[in-house]
Amino acid sequence: MFIMKILAIDSSGLVAGIAVAEEDRLVAEYTVDYKKTHSQTLLPMLDEVKKMIELDLSTIDAIAVAAGPGSFTGLRIGSATAKGMAGALDKPIIEIPTIDGMAYNLFGFEGVICPIMDARRNQVYTGFYTFERNEEEESGFSFRIIREQFAADIREVTEQLNELGKNVMFLGDGVPVFAQIIKENMRVPFGFAPANCNRQHASSVAVLAQKYYLEGKTVKASRHKPEYLRMSQAERERMEKENAANR
Amino acid sequence: MFIMKILAIDSSGLVAGIAVAEEDRLVAEYTVDYKKTHSQTLLPMLDEVKKMIELDLSTIDAIAVAAGPGSFTGLRIGSATAKGMAGALDKPIIEIPTIDGMAYNLFGFEGVICPIMDARRNQVYTGFYTFERNEEEESGFSFRIIREQFAADIREVTEQLNELGKNVMFLGDGVPVFAQIIKENMRVPFGFAPANCNRQHASSVAVLAQKYYLEGKTVKASRHKPEYLRMSQAERERMEKENAANR
Repeated sequence: MFIMKILAIDSSGLVAGIAVAEEDRLVAEYTVDYKKTHSQTLLPMLDEVKKMIELDLSTIDAIAVAAGPGSFTGLRIGSATAKGMAGALDKPIIEIPTIDGMAYNLFGFEGVICPIMDARRNQVYTGFYTFERNEEEESGFSFRIIREQFAADIREVTEQLNELGKNVMFLGDGVPVFAQIIKENMRVPFGFAPANCNRQHASSVAVLAQKYYLEGKTVKASRHKPEYLRMSQAERERMEKENAANR
Repeated sequence: MFIMKILAIDSSGLVAGIAVAEEDRLVAEYTVDYKKTHSQTLLPMLDEVKKMIELDLSTIDAIAVAAGPGSFTGLRIGSATAKGMAGALDKPIIEIPTIDGMAYNLFGFEGVICPIMDARRNQVYTGFYTFERNEEEESGFSFRIIREQFAADIREVTEQLNELGKNVMFLGDGVPVFAQIIKENMRVPFGFAPANCNRQHASSVAVLAQKYYLEGKTVKASRHKPEYLRMSQAERERMEKENAANR
């Protein structure tokens, strides 16, 4: 019997996460949200997990990565790690949209799931999701993307959520930053997810990646690149300079 | 400002888990479901996490432990570890009912959450839970225990769930064992939770422990003992022998 084994990496935000999933079993997950850089955490965490579960990397079917949006440095480290490993092992990469992965933390939630990542200057990376009952699925639910991940002003986000008219669950590192604005602007019932499910989890990335894998949504290591959704500040500044020079 | 810091341990089942939570932030979580004994995993995992997040144990406010039911050996190792640390550090212990902790994986689920742990001979450790909307709560939901954890025959459990008349989400190591019986007996919509939330998570124990701590539900290390819910096989056999001798 084929047992699908996925190694998942999420370093899109402040959290560094590693997970190994085999079908309906989470073999290992390691999550760290601490004031170290991902270059200090991600590879040591991976080594630790490898040793703990005596992981033979050649038995992995694919490497999943939270492929953006997120912190530029974090995404680059995650992608470089995934690319390096996938290239060396000749395995495909599964690119999971960061915000989709976060939404999957709230498996089975029937209101609107709204992950928000702080993107500075009152901007967030976000997306709208829900779980709908579906008896065809083993889990009894399908994951539905109401609005694909996008970048916007937090006030625009709360307006759009009010228009959806359903209760909303917020999560992500944008919550502590924008809680006040959210409280002032929301006119539908809402809440903030608790600590066990309010930040990136590599296990959520792994579970979404299982679906992608079965649907053939993989890429070659050499073709993978992160999705920044926005230009980096350096790119923006260069563009502004160029625009100014062209005037 | 007081920041509540909880160290949580779950070794009630096949999974070994460690988590450190500070208020709404999961600082670290390490989860392993691998064919090693908890004596091979739990303490090394704790050491690893301590090093990774430079954890000064004296800054912890309480030690939370999944206090049963579960595997006898697993519970004893978890409890001994919690007791040893709490005693040495002079910190209280927070005893979290194992099944409650597992139910908390499905935060925000409005159907019936039914964790099942295999207790052999068609018996399971289980309990019925749900999340109800409550705008008074920061998270927008309260956790409601429909039926406190208990041990019963799996068929009795499915009957009781059918009577509740709501959709049900199963999780736990009882799922692979009893999936067929469940499918044959359930007459309400149901599903099996996916790998990211279908086994013990120390982060769920930690989040429930935060509530207990604020409610003053702590015990002294010396008074803590696990809740087995059932007699161990050795105890049952001794009792049966005694009964036979007394006849």
